[in-house]
Amino acid sequence: MVSHLISMGESFRSIWLKKNDPSVVQIIDQRKLPHQTIIFDITCYQDGIFAIREMLVRGAPLIGATAAWSLYLACFKADINTKHESIRIAAEEISTARPTAVNLRGSIQRILSFIKNVKDEDLVEALKNEVQAICNEDIEICKSIGKNGLKIIENISSKKNHGTVNVLTHCNAGALATINWGTATAPIYYAHQKGIKIHVWVDETRPRNQGSQLTTWELEKNKVPHTLIVDNAGGHIMQRGMVDLCIVGSDRTTRTGDVANKIGTYLKALAAADNNVPFYVALPSTTIDWQIDDGISNIPIEERDPTEVSHIYGESKGQLQTINTVPTSSAISNYAFDITPANLVTGLITEKGLCEASAEGLAELFPDQAKI
Amino acid sequence: MVSHLISMGESFRSIWLKKNDPSVVQIIDQRKLPHQTIIFDITCYQDGIFAIREMLVRGAPLIGATAAWSLYLACFKADINTKHESIRIAAEEISTARPTAVNLRGSIQRILSFIKNVKDEDLVEALKNEVQAICNEDIEICKSIGKNGLKIIENISSKKNHGTVNVLTHCNAGALATINWGTATAPIYYAHQKGIKIHVWVDETRPRNQGSQLTTWELEKNKVPHTLIVDNAGGHIMQRGMVDLCIVGSDRTTRTGDVANKIGTYLKALAAADNNVPFYVALPSTTIDWQIDDGISNIPIEERDPTEVSHIYGESKGQLQTINTVPTSSAISNYAFDITPANLVTGLITEKGLCEASAEGLAELFPDQAKI
Repeated sequence: MVSHLISMGESFRSIWLKKNDPSVVQIIDQRKLPHQTIIFDITCYQDGIFAIREMLVRGAPLIGATAAWSLYLACFKADINTKHESIRIAAEEISTARPTAVNLRGSIQRILSFIKNVKDEDLVEALKNEVQAICNEDIEICKSIGKNGLKIIENISSKKNHGTVNVLTHCNAGALATINWGTATAPIYYAHQKGIKIHVWVDETRPRNQGSQLTTWELEKNKVPHTLIVDNAGGHIMQRGMVDLCIVGSDRTTRTGDVANKIGTYLKALAAADNNVPFYVALPSTTIDWQIDDGISNIPIEERDPTEVSHIYGESKGQLQTINTVPTSSAISNYAFDITPANLVTGLITEKGLCEASAEGLAELFPDQAKI
Repeated sequence: MVSHLISMGESFRSIWLKKNDPSVVQIIDQRKLPHQTIIFDITCYQDGIFAIREMLVRGAPLIGATAAWSLYLACFKADINTKHESIRIAAEEISTARPTAVNLRGSIQRILSFIKNVKDEDLVEALKNEVQAICNEDIEICKSIGKNGLKIIENISSKKNHGTVNVLTHCNAGALATINWGTATAPIYYAHQKGIKIHVWVDETRPRNQGSQLTTWELEKNKVPHTLIVDNAGGHIMQRGMVDLCIVGSDRTTRTGDVANKIGTYLKALAAADNNVPFYVALPSTTIDWQIDDGISNIPIEERDPTEVSHIYGESKGQLQTINTVPTSSAISNYAFDITPANLVTGLITEKGLCEASAEGLAELFPDQAKI
């Protein structure tokens, strides 16, 4: 049991190089949370692909970091004169592990550019530092998102005369989806630390229950008041005035502000619009795909194994087990993401500040990347 | 094992008086489907309350029929000179079993009016016939809904040049929610019988999984092609043009056309509106509450036990069991219904025909009840 897994806050990490063993990268096997806290050793890049594909790690930034650490391991294991080639081979394989999050390919590209001018003998050490840098940057990005999003919560708190601010979130865009702090959760953690009264409605997030199994776990450890609801309930509670604000994460954002996020996000955005609830998307600029304009046509939506829908993991009489809840021959479809069109998004919370979900809004914050 | 439970179609019943034993009413324990087909004996009106409250039966029409049969049992068990009084006492208790469906109180009112002019010695037989009549009427109503809704499906089929009509439904408004045929499913069954190519998207319907455990069971037995999806997925598939039509049921409908139905219905109605998918509600006029105008203010929304969210029933290695998927101290809210405002409803499918979801639309079909 590693101590930083138990205490959240500043010291938490979702991925790290094993202490005194630079040949092993460690993660929490998120499939087992909150039932068990199991550390999984990634000892080669194929382990990294397994961890991404089977969702031991998930969340766009953490997928990106896992890809980067996997390339480091590909380099570490390779003979001195095949290191560059081994990284390139690994990069090609890793990039197909999951289709939707742009960070996967983003962080692979960054590593491939980085290694161009590094000599074979320096590669392991240089790559280790570069991947650490990616992780540290991600933490700084999340902190900036937290500070920028905090303003929105503070405003609502003031308007409510310091009454409780009720935030709805979908899936887990938390510390477990990033390296620490999270994207959607960072403003929540900052507000809570500052003593603002806050309460989080946590969508269960079927089929993989990232809300009920990861977000509740995080919020509980950070002592943030929260209530779990099924994905069906968000519309009802917005209709009844029980939500002041929605904040979700993003797996990929077009340069025009369309947002690919966990399946069901779009439904909550519709309900928010119908009930005048502000709907914000918190995202590091690494999840922006500057090449595409139209989320619905241009972002591939992953279809995953139907057993994710039919089989559910949990605990009975002290035993952990998986049960089949749909023992029929019915066909099952399992789309992992959906697209929330920019017109349903009140604003984007990025590390550079808040902006409108539009090409113009993003270009103002990121003039170099936008190149309009 | 009772044969009509296995073969669906004309002979199916969800509730019936036990053969050769007028002291027992039988139902299928729907909590156990599709894993097990268990017949539950209702031997007194308290058993009836248990069956309604614990959801061995559910669905507005079947709740109404169960209430009526429970009053019959209260009468059957009572001494000859306390029969009227026993029915009234039972009626008061039964009417509190669940708050949202209007049929519960509707069918109790009908029985209370009916018995006024019946002598003690005739009461058991008369009541038995009256409850049978309620059940038979419900079947006829569902058939009429089926014929009226069939026209909508036929139109779409024609427009698609006899290509497959994709219908999305939420929860179970099927034979298992009524006495037979269902409300939302009746047009589907009629279309399928007529040879129209049809495919049903079945929402899982958390937290009680009526979609994945009841609707799939029914559609499979009736050989209607269908695909199970999580509740989060409906928006995505509508966005991609994969849904031609939504049909859902209703637990209570205001005289102005607002619809209380299973939690999550409202979210699908929003997605349908956003993607120009027709959104129909199939309902027997018994679910219309002619007294109220505003669904959001006037319909009480039941909150049920949080363990319905955290605990899931299924099968593992041949054993049926309940697992806890949320082993934290997180608070859980469990709202059972939501309100879909009339403006999101394309039309109502009733036993009297189709109409607009409005006071005017309903008044045209039901001038006597509407009394505007």
